[in-house]
Amino acid sequence: MLPIRIEDADDPRIAEFRAIRERDLTGREGRFIAEGTVVLRMLSAAHQHGTDFRAEKILLLENRVGGLVEVLAEFPPEVPVYVASGEVLDRIAGFHLHRGVLALGRRIGQATAGDVLEGLDASALVVAAFGISNHDNIGSIFRNAAAFGADAVILDQGCCDPLYRKALRVSVGSVLSVPYARGGSACDVLAALAERNFAVWGLSPSGKTEIRAVPPADRMALITGTEGEGLPAAILATIRTARIAQAPGLDSLNAATATGIALYEIAMAQGRL
Amino acid sequence: MLPIRIEDADDPRIAEFRAIRERDLTGREGRFIAEGTVVLRMLSAAHQHGTDFRAEKILLLENRVGGLVEVLAEFPPEVPVYVASGEVLDRIAGFHLHRGVLALGRRIGQATAGDVLEGLDASALVVAAFGISNHDNIGSIFRNAAAFGADAVILDQGCCDPLYRKALRVSVGSVLSVPYARGGSACDVLAALAERNFAVWGLSPSGKTEIRAVPPADRMALITGTEGEGLPAAILATIRTARIAQAPGLDSLNAATATGIALYEIAMAQGRL
Repeated sequence: MLPIRIEDADDPRIAEFRAIRERDLTGREGRFIAEGTVVLRMLSAAHQHGTDFRAEKILLLENRVGGLVEVLAEFPPEVPVYVASGEVLDRIAGFHLHRGVLALGRRIGQATAGDVLEGLDASALVVAAFGISNHDNIGSIFRNAAAFGADAVILDQGCCDPLYRKALRVSVGSVLSVPYARGGSACDVLAALAERNFAVWGLSPSGKTEIRAVPPADRMALITGTEGEGLPAAILATIRTARIAQAPGLDSLNAATATGIALYEIAMAQGRL
Repeated sequence: MLPIRIEDADDPRIAEFRAIRERDLTGREGRFIAEGTVVLRMLSAAHQHGTDFRAEKILLLENRVGGLVEVLAEFPPEVPVYVASGEVLDRIAGFHLHRGVLALGRRIGQATAGDVLEGLDASALVVAAFGISNHDNIGSIFRNAAAFGADAVILDQGCCDPLYRKALRVSVGSVLSVPYARGGSACDVLAALAERNFAVWGLSPSGKTEIRAVPPADRMALITGTEGEGLPAAILATIRTARIAQAPGLDSLNAATATGIALYEIAMAQGRL
């Protein structure tokens, strides 16, 4: 399909890309904005692999089209590709979009934690996150999950949507490749994991076992909470807990780094890497 | 000292806080902006401990003063404290400053890598970074260095200034507590480490030794490069290299996470945690 030129920032065909910094499309029927070449490639791959994600339209800075011909060819022909000058594109987006690559995607399924967990092998590694409302941290959890070969991410209802533009970008598109579910309470998630024989470990600065001493199991789940307060005491009381040793008297680690260290240790213990 | 009320965003007494998002003060005689309560506390501590940092002035949202009385009392009486309404403060800063806490600091010394390394014990852990121009990544390196008890950070001349507002904020103020030097070429830094008997390990996805198998030594230095390209081949050829195992076929880890994992492993191997 030939790219369609957009001359007017108010053109209704590209309405979903307007003022994308300020608003969040994710509430609207699972739509999301994929930004940048790497995330566009992940959206293309998700399309081809028959996952729950579909591209609806693509909007590019005119001088980016040449370099993206091969990526664009992997999308179905019914996905329109719009192009605009830098000036028009910045007016559409509402800020200077130096990457010049946007796509509108849609999540067509809504798998539950149970659905996602049912599909896993006898040997599995899952990350579950509770109450994480920071988009960078959600994105980082997916990036780390992908880097260390985790099989799924489970988010409770208190987590923000990983399809939010910034979370998706920070994840380097991993939100589109690592199977995930979002919804239900923390207790629902813990019950779903226990039913399926997952050894569940909560990550906390006050955890009882140093992370590298956590014994391996066939099915393991790492639970992570918010950066400031961490997992609630009521949850930590019901599961085994792991800590990451730190120098005394300091602020705890950044949430992304803590999750990365814990996933590396557990994946190594399971012999997955 | 009683807070001084600022009514006019153009008041020359608070000129250094004007439009702070767009400009970088660090080039000007080592001045920097500390933002937020946590960083303000670190600046106060740096002051008291006789480090190279001094506070020059403080600017607060009027309703923050009450909660900061104890922190403010730790600064010398000659450091003026200015207060402004939210409206005036936002006009000064040039954007909505929801934290409402700013300080202007100054670095009064310029230690070289040699100066910093000379002061270290027989047992030491140093992080050196080459060519890192991303402020988040520089800030994260300091935060991780502090979390795992590293004794110093050495930045080559290709790294951005860690006193830049955003780097300082991401470091949670650790730039003011972990001794560091910035300057010289990567070769200069490697030579300074070798002269002082540091076992030098470069972190790279193509590293030869898995990070948890790196043998401990009394003095160890971890070298980290940029997120995309990593350390140059010419440098990797001259030092021992370590990798962090990852699932195949994926983008490498975020630089902050990779440095965090490597520092945790090395600090554990040295028995520092």
